[in-house]
Amino acid sequence: MSEENNIIYVGKKPTMNYVLAVVTQFNTNNVEKIVIKARGKSISKAVDIAEITKNKFMPNAKYADIHITTEKVEGERGESNVSSIEITIAK
Amino acid sequence: MSEENNIIYVGKKPTMNYVLAVVTQFNTNNVEKIVIKARGKSISKAVDIAEITKNKFMPNAKYADIHITTEKVEGERGESNVSSIEITIAK
Repeated sequence: MSEENNIIYVGKKPTMNYVLAVVTQFNTNNVEKIVIKARGKSISKAVDIAEITKNKFMPNAKYADIHITTEKVEGERGESNVSSIEITIAK
Repeated sequence: MSEENNIIYVGKKPTMNYVLAVVTQFNTNNVEKIVIKARGKSISKAVDIAEITKNKFMPNAKYADIHITTEKVEGERGESNVSSIEITIAK
């Protein structure tokens, strides 16, 4: 699980690992905003992480921004397009 | 593929079927806005549909709204929570 500058990158770990990372960052680093980023199939998990964080742990949090875009990824067979999402949660 | 009142519900069909449904609705019914709705694992596909529609077919379209929420679903084992997304595209 990567964390830098209040950005949580969603990968293959269980959903609750990322939820706890978000809640922990809010509580221990005293940040105001956290961005949850995901690409491709992980986008659904990013939405779960955001919703669980908001509904179960931080009822006063709000979505400051939800942004979707397309990124180019280098793969074995050359460049391909992949959708991505950035969900900004503000406490 | 369900369509009603400019809402496209994303299910198990191939991504391009939904892209074509969105583009067709914009062009033939002359609507100004279309909402792409998806739940659970289909959320990633909804983002793909929105991005392909915008980047390949309707370069002037904009995202009027992106909303995520949690819905309660009745299953065999009782009620469960599922994340959902609504992406509103405006031409």
